[in-house]
Amino acid sequence: MLRTHTCGELRLDHVNQEVTLAGWVQRVRNKGGLIWVDLRDRYGLTQLIFEEGSSEKSLLDKAAQLGREFVVSATGTVIERTAKNEKMATGLIEIKVSKLEVLNAAKVPPFIIEDETDGGDELRMKYRYLDLRRGVVREKLQLRHRMMQETRKYMDAQDFIEVETPVLIKSTPEGARDFVVPSRTNPGEFYALPQSPQTFKQLLMVSGFDRYFQIVKCFRDEDLRADRQPEFTQIDCEMAFVTQEDILNTFEGLIKHLFSSVKGIDLGHVDHMTFADAMKYYGNDKPDIRFDMKFVELNELAKGKDFAIFDNAELVVGICAKGAAGYTRKQIDELTEWVKRPQIGAKGMIYLRYNADGSLKSSVDKFYSPEDLQAWADAFGAEPGDLMLVLSGDANMARKQLSELRLKMGEELGLRDRNTYKPLWVLDFPLLEWDEETKRFHAMHHPFTSPKAEDIPLLETDPGAVRANAYDLVINGVEVGGGSIRIHDRATQQLMFTHLGFSDEEAQKQFGFLMEAFEYGAPPHGGIAFGFDRICAIFGGSDSIRDYIAFPKNNSGRDVMIDSPSTIAQEQLEELSIRVSLEQR
Amino acid sequence: MLRTHTCGELRLDHVNQEVTLAGWVQRVRNKGGLIWVDLRDRYGLTQLIFEEGSSEKSLLDKAAQLGREFVVSATGTVIERTAKNEKMATGLIEIKVSKLEVLNAAKVPPFIIEDETDGGDELRMKYRYLDLRRGVVREKLQLRHRMMQETRKYMDAQDFIEVETPVLIKSTPEGARDFVVPSRTNPGEFYALPQSPQTFKQLLMVSGFDRYFQIVKCFRDEDLRADRQPEFTQIDCEMAFVTQEDILNTFEGLIKHLFSSVKGIDLGHVDHMTFADAMKYYGNDKPDIRFDMKFVELNELAKGKDFAIFDNAELVVGICAKGAAGYTRKQIDELTEWVKRPQIGAKGMIYLRYNADGSLKSSVDKFYSPEDLQAWADAFGAEPGDLMLVLSGDANMARKQLSELRLKMGEELGLRDRNTYKPLWVLDFPLLEWDEETKRFHAMHHPFTSPKAEDIPLLETDPGAVRANAYDLVINGVEVGGGSIRIHDRATQQLMFTHLGFSDEEAQKQFGFLMEAFEYGAPPHGGIAFGFDRICAIFGGSDSIRDYIAFPKNNSGRDVMIDSPSTIAQEQLEELSIRVSLEQR
Repeated sequence: MLRTHTCGELRLDHVNQEVTLAGWVQRVRNKGGLIWVDLRDRYGLTQLIFEEGSSEKSLLDKAAQLGREFVVSATGTVIERTAKNEKMATGLIEIKVSKLEVLNAAKVPPFIIEDETDGGDELRMKYRYLDLRRGVVREKLQLRHRMMQETRKYMDAQDFIEVETPVLIKSTPEGARDFVVPSRTNPGEFYALPQSPQTFKQLLMVSGFDRYFQIVKCFRDEDLRADRQPEFTQIDCEMAFVTQEDILNTFEGLIKHLFSSVKGIDLGHVDHMTFADAMKYYGNDKPDIRFDMKFVELNELAKGKDFAIFDNAELVVGICAKGAAGYTRKQIDELTEWVKRPQIGAKGMIYLRYNADGSLKSSVDKFYSPEDLQAWADAFGAEPGDLMLVLSGDANMARKQLSELRLKMGEELGLRDRNTYKPLWVLDFPLLEWDEETKRFHAMHHPFTSPKAEDIPLLETDPGAVRANAYDLVINGVEVGGGSIRIHDRATQQLMFTHLGFSDEEAQKQFGFLMEAFEYGAPPHGGIAFGFDRICAIFGGSDSIRDYIAFPKNNSGRDVMIDSPSTIAQEQLEELSIRVSLEQR
Repeated sequence: MLRTHTCGELRLDHVNQEVTLAGWVQRVRNKGGLIWVDLRDRYGLTQLIFEEGSSEKSLLDKAAQLGREFVVSATGTVIERTAKNEKMATGLIEIKVSKLEVLNAAKVPPFIIEDETDGGDELRMKYRYLDLRRGVVREKLQLRHRMMQETRKYMDAQDFIEVETPVLIKSTPEGARDFVVPSRTNPGEFYALPQSPQTFKQLLMVSGFDRYFQIVKCFRDEDLRADRQPEFTQIDCEMAFVTQEDILNTFEGLIKHLFSSVKGIDLGHVDHMTFADAMKYYGNDKPDIRFDMKFVELNELAKGKDFAIFDNAELVVGICAKGAAGYTRKQIDELTEWVKRPQIGAKGMIYLRYNADGSLKSSVDKFYSPEDLQAWADAFGAEPGDLMLVLSGDANMARKQLSELRLKMGEELGLRDRNTYKPLWVLDFPLLEWDEETKRFHAMHHPFTSPKAEDIPLLETDPGAVRANAYDLVINGVEVGGGSIRIHDRATQQLMFTHLGFSDEEAQKQFGFLMEAFEYGAPPHGGIAFGFDRICAIFGGSDSIRDYIAFPKNNSGRDVMIDSPSTIAQEQLEELSIRVSLEQR
């Protein structure tokens, strides 16, 4: 080894030992006859000292010439510092250097390599290898590493087998677009990269591997939104001979294990909520339940009082912000403007303030008597000091808008603490959702999800009302995982494909192998997949997944560091039997 | 859970307990009033019993209708067997069934699902999900799982960080062909799938993650030979601030850990051998050292005695097969025919038999005196009872041919026991190798491998003689891993590209980001990658990697189960700005 210790491990115990450290020059302070160098590696910082008189002149000169990010090895004696730094793990000691070797010089980096940097997004992406040197970024990848190891530890202990499923599979463009890979040896044919290992993990259940997991890259060729990546990582899991309850318990266990082992947090009880309730009470299939502020529907109380807006609305619905009666008129106007922005799309907002003195003040006082408003307040369970905010209109729209408002109020009132974690299982998702564009039903989860047995007759009469054996795990308003009990017989699977608008030929071409597998003894099974990048971001207290990915792509799907994608040679295209044809677009 | 226990866990302790098992029907024996069913799951087999009189008639009828591979759940009481089967883990008990539920029926499988099967290769590949039910195949994937977990356990304990590098990267067609992925959002441009995460792991070293590993899928678009797969798995590793010796020690540690934790074998000392010695003594850069039988060069003894074949040969070289003097003339003739096959390509073979009585008999008695032959025998260190086999010709060819003969003799003499493991580090590989086809030097390992400092001047005068800081780990004659100390400065890297025939522009376009990274403080570093599929096969005692891969492709790169690759829709092609152009070929 080119070092005897790391830059994070020396303490007073090591005083008088001769050591060799190696790392990067973080900072040089040169006071003429006295030079301090902070040497950095993955494990920490250690101060080196070079002193006129006790160090040789040539050594001092060498130290004086060190620049930021030079790579050096330094040999010397551990000494006790006179000016101690209790905030640094190695702050009680320093190294009196007797030998210094420059292992590699460094150009001046394009941005400051410290927790607070002056580098913009583009620059840090281009020099991602320098950005990764910053402690705050490095810690995110270290967290990710820890999460991976602990996930595997738990799954292995629960008898799950990690199986690598293929990356070169077959294009089945249900859902998002596939990335495809031209086959050289099968001209005119293409592999596809998996959007998930769904069919393979189901085949593993048919094979009898009753507990499977994998931490696996998946691919979606989507138009990238702010926080999506074309390649992302899933914790992918499947179990046979289980009920939905068994799956929830098993993976509640995983999440609890991760919280306790990685963050030292006891997650406690994980609530369950139906999709229907989530929509009714939070207007959202991934409610943030760190705070309550449930929706209260006011149709009965608010309609029929000649207030046309409410009378014409399908739904009048509001929230009660506890203790927010102090909001000024200006603040309330700002909220009204906020919900009227096109991103939210409300037509307006009604407020009802429950003053500390017990009186009620609203923006619709002329339509409603104090008794009417008191009835509202009672419906909200409001107390003096609370502020009620009410939206109305088309039921789905109003709920969606109110959900946004609720989250904003939660934020403003400090109810969404990043260090508080509230997990929630959302259950009984609809099987199908209507797609306006294609005018047909799509599978809400995926075509392999089983309908609830008692709802199957509805497939013919009211497909949108059919509930699925499908569930999501939500933490703090973020969906971190989702899954379902699968279909495991050919007839039901074929029925599903028919309802999804597949012709028998299409279904056979794309998923014939799976339906055939179901005929050779497929056990009841189900599973779940977690968005690993997302879980890491939540554990790290971040909104964005990008920093939890070592080498992410930008919003145009480019890796600006290696400059990819790029053109390829004509011979490569010819070997692959394809041509670029830009004019088609 | 749809079961209370697995089919592998019930013992005499459980007698009288009521249990529910679920699994597949392995076998039904129907003796009229008495039916036995062997129920199978991943964990084992348990015998179910249905008896007239004590079981209801309807239950007996149901049991009688079970077919092979039906999926059932059975509830009943654990009872002690009268006819015990000590060979089965659950052979002391059986389940007297009170309730039987068919969870799924099964068609008759296309081949027998037992360790010994009647299914041919193609059929088992098409129904891979059924093949995976066979115990012998399942165990291979379970071994692979264990190997993965233990690899991570070791690496994590050694402070290595697992980092996922991107799968959508950039085409750099040095070495094998890349698989490419057309980018929809960047028309006319392509990603490539990684042949290895080489440049990324080096960038991680530049980032200061001084110990990286990953168990990662890699891709090579090669014409598939018998035991190659287009996608394969590597244990990919890199370390900074280390010497070659540190790397050898660290990964010797990994291999020892795997042998002890997975197979309970103490691997003992790992030998080192230079590439030059491996070629000289074994004619092979991956010698099987489970047995000795080193090459002995006979030029001095064999030439100049008017035996034209030897006189005209660049090299006369042989092996001594201990105790093989009993080989008959017929057996020796067969060996001669064997080395003359086109796959080996020798012109002939000379033998020298050291008879038990001390006399010597050879096929060249008329050219060599008994004293001459005795001198040969002495050079071989032969004793009465040994058989010496000698080849000659062009030195490289003769060594290669003799290496094959040595391995065959080792096999025939039972010296290559699958349960004996002899690891070996082969060191000091050449940096470059001459490619006849392109008439230029290629990097033997890859272009990032550092030359030995003392050999750098030879780059100008005798490039083929430059040795690299490169090493392979060989077990039982199979290369399981290889790596090198890398170049970590721009000047040397550029020099290498020049010697490999890159123009400055090409080098910059393909690897500019890496060379630039070397200017911002790159530490000395090196690493290794292990062929994970191969290591699993060796641990499992198999020659072929295919069974250690859950869903392998066939030799034409097809997945015959899902029927991939396949054609894709015209709209997909259009979105990707490509056309299929079969006529080009």
